[in-house]
Amino acid sequence: MSPLDNLRAHDRVTSALAQVAGRLGWDQETVMPRGAAIQRGDEMAAMEAVLHARRCDPRLGEWLNEAAQTPADSPTARADHALIRQIRRSHDRACRVPGELAAELARVTSLAQGIWAQARADEDFASFAPTLAHVIDLRRQEAAALCEGRDLTPYNALLDDYEPGASEASLTAMFDALRPGLVALRQDIADAASDAPALPEHHFDPQVQMALATEVATAFGYDLTRGRLDCAVHPFSSGSGADVRITTRTDPADPFNCLYSTIHEVGHACYEQSITPDYALTSLGQGVSMGVHESQSRIYENQLGRSRAFTGWLYGRMRDAFGDFGVGDEDAFYRIVNRVAPGHIRTEADEVHYNLHVMLRFDLERRLIAGTLDVTDLPEAWNSRFADDFGLTVDRASNGVLQDVHWSVGLFGYFPTYTLGNVYAGCLHEALRRAVPDLDDRLSRGDTSAATGWLGQSVQQYGALHEPRALITQATGQEPGVTPLLSYLRRKFGDIYGV
Amino acid sequence: MSPLDNLRAHDRVTSALAQVAGRLGWDQETVMPRGAAIQRGDEMAAMEAVLHARRCDPRLGEWLNEAAQTPADSPTARADHALIRQIRRSHDRACRVPGELAAELARVTSLAQGIWAQARADEDFASFAPTLAHVIDLRRQEAAALCEGRDLTPYNALLDDYEPGASEASLTAMFDALRPGLVALRQDIADAASDAPALPEHHFDPQVQMALATEVATAFGYDLTRGRLDCAVHPFSSGSGADVRITTRTDPADPFNCLYSTIHEVGHACYEQSITPDYALTSLGQGVSMGVHESQSRIYENQLGRSRAFTGWLYGRMRDAFGDFGVGDEDAFYRIVNRVAPGHIRTEADEVHYNLHVMLRFDLERRLIAGTLDVTDLPEAWNSRFADDFGLTVDRASNGVLQDVHWSVGLFGYFPTYTLGNVYAGCLHEALRRAVPDLDDRLSRGDTSAATGWLGQSVQQYGALHEPRALITQATGQEPGVTPLLSYLRRKFGDIYGV
Repeated sequence: MSPLDNLRAHDRVTSALAQVAGRLGWDQETVMPRGAAIQRGDEMAAMEAVLHARRCDPRLGEWLNEAAQTPADSPTARADHALIRQIRRSHDRACRVPGELAAELARVTSLAQGIWAQARADEDFASFAPTLAHVIDLRRQEAAALCEGRDLTPYNALLDDYEPGASEASLTAMFDALRPGLVALRQDIADAASDAPALPEHHFDPQVQMALATEVATAFGYDLTRGRLDCAVHPFSSGSGADVRITTRTDPADPFNCLYSTIHEVGHACYEQSITPDYALTSLGQGVSMGVHESQSRIYENQLGRSRAFTGWLYGRMRDAFGDFGVGDEDAFYRIVNRVAPGHIRTEADEVHYNLHVMLRFDLERRLIAGTLDVTDLPEAWNSRFADDFGLTVDRASNGVLQDVHWSVGLFGYFPTYTLGNVYAGCLHEALRRAVPDLDDRLSRGDTSAATGWLGQSVQQYGALHEPRALITQATGQEPGVTPLLSYLRRKFGDIYGV
Repeated sequence: MSPLDNLRAHDRVTSALAQVAGRLGWDQETVMPRGAAIQRGDEMAAMEAVLHARRCDPRLGEWLNEAAQTPADSPTARADHALIRQIRRSHDRACRVPGELAAELARVTSLAQGIWAQARADEDFASFAPTLAHVIDLRRQEAAALCEGRDLTPYNALLDDYEPGASEASLTAMFDALRPGLVALRQDIADAASDAPALPEHHFDPQVQMALATEVATAFGYDLTRGRLDCAVHPFSSGSGADVRITTRTDPADPFNCLYSTIHEVGHACYEQSITPDYALTSLGQGVSMGVHESQSRIYENQLGRSRAFTGWLYGRMRDAFGDFGVGDEDAFYRIVNRVAPGHIRTEADEVHYNLHVMLRFDLERRLIAGTLDVTDLPEAWNSRFADDFGLTVDRASNGVLQDVHWSVGLFGYFPTYTLGNVYAGCLHEALRRAVPDLDDRLSRGDTSAATGWLGQSVQQYGALHEPRALITQATGQEPGVTPLLSYLRRKFGDIYGV
């Protein structure tokens, strides 16, 4: 076998095992008996140990060096070189992190998730604090190992896992460019609107919500023969290729939580399902970064799902499903779905406030990783910053520092990719509107196929073939920046609120 | 670390990975999207390759030889030597089988399961035949590898996976000893009974069946905080330690299918859940053989679950759950639950016919593995033997050769352990009656705790500490044999049918 063939064969098994480990995560969040948490931690650690050992395999280093000589003019050269790039990145990273630390991180974060969920249910940050401190300590050790002998900050080392090519500096610049426009728009809306439109008071049967969520997921192109939709504490998407599963949750008082979480996760899932089958079970067979992933979920959810055109169709479907639920017409429905108001919860935030939630987390988590903010001081830091940014008091931990699962599972450096995704979604939406002039006509009939088809062709099919920024540049014809997102928000909410 | 510590550490990771692989099987049978079958085959193969490589690890051979010197008088000597025995068995086996063959078997059997299920639904053996031939070919290759240089037949080599210490010869002797008594009893019942009591004509709501199944499972001691009960095409039990899951199925016309499948699987699950926690995630932390496993599932299902005492309690619970379902009293109910009649389906067979179903499979699968029966001739061989043994024509493949999943997933040598389990259950039941004189009083109140407690103490807690026959001998105070089972059947059905 050639070095490249060796790499391919090795990568295929590693990719299959990574799918298994990912599915174990799905299982933990959806169907695992609660008494299995400790055993599950050991199982996760064992899988991580196997994956880590494969990624460190010294033969990979040899094959990578030899395969790099692959001629650039072979028919598969582009994919070959991208595969080599992806495997090299994973190999280099794994070689720097001791296997015991990788396994311990898997074990501890698996357990931490349950401890966080219980603490959130109990509104008891103190019971979670030691676990969080442990997770942060392990991630800091990992970051230190990744930085050794390199000109790299610990936070950037972690960020690289989720968004290759991004840095604290580039993200700070992005947030600095976004923030004034968002704050100004929020202020204009607050000045103009006496009250945000309220949710109708109605009982929305959870089973009917799930049936409608399934219909909407299908309308966005989610293939349920290669996926499934379940209820879980957290909406999430999991898996690649032929087994891409999503979850959502229901609140009898608020059907939009379920429906828009579903559309969001469908965006993630369709990305994974739309990657060319040639890349299945390879290092190219997955979304290239969390920022690009989030661009898909956010454009499905917001630019498409919360558009005037699509909400018109959705209003009809909700009337069919729930009868008269107390909203008089499509326009009122559109305003409710797009109501702008400060709130505690990131996942329920409107498009204007959402990135402000992310900025708060970005700033706090950098201090946690830098060691300049102690876990015991975190709730106070959160609440104080939240009051500054949102003008709201945090009344309980589940409305504040305990609301997100991310830190419990060690996801430091992940939050900023949400905003990066929004920025990319803004760019893609602009290009999509040019490419599909009659988009609103189609969306108003519940037909997303032109939009999702364009995203599939322009972004999703490539998997990890192109680097993130290069992919967005190729898809949109220009370097990504914050202007399209800010223009879109100003236009959309300017229309709604007359500002 | 001492050689024994090295073995323990290695075994712990392998055991955790085996749990992951097992859970992947659970996932496939319960929640996997149908379009994921091919990818799943690759994932299963990757897991098997990892497990196989760990079990062949040459360091194991060294550690095993060194650890065998462990002094026999240390406090943990008994468990240490049993652990060494189990790891050596697994190591020796794995070293004989090429890794590629092990992985290919995992891949092909994963896929074959879906192909079998489709063929069964379509009543189309021909569409399954090439796959079955492929599975048999791979298993024969494996058996040949296991036999190389040893005085061992291929069938015995496969049998050893499920029942260490058993052989074609010992099982044939067991069947020969059982068969005349079973055939005579069946004939006596047929002569005495004009008609077997029929199932009542009633619609048994599947959701109510599942709720009652959950209650019955709990009544038998199944711990749902470390397990779960789902619907699947096949009832099965899966997992060890803190995550032991079972499935059942519902038929609106026949609630006993659901209820007794549940009790059966609860027997398996309670065995796994009752193993001493010291053995969790080790090679001792699992049932010692399929025969012993089946002894637990069958004694829960039959000697306890179908007893006059317990069915009296169950009748009351069914009246509570379903109202008047057309059975007048406890005695009529007992006769229905224990009706004896020849039928096509093994899993629905009464206690008199059950082992005749197993004998048919035992004889046919030995010929398949020996190469003296071709897959294309299998349906004819099945149907002809079935007519001889049961006096019934096989009207369709799902009532004949396609009814069981086992051969599709490569389980050759597994079927006879069902009857061995029945024989062991007979022995254990006799000892249990001696140990718990007021058992019927308790069962008539739905209280299984004395029985399951005795089984837990006498059998289940030990996991794989003792070899199968030694375990049953220790629990019952005598060498196992067929007499207790035959006496029990003759007494029970003699009472019911007056023969």
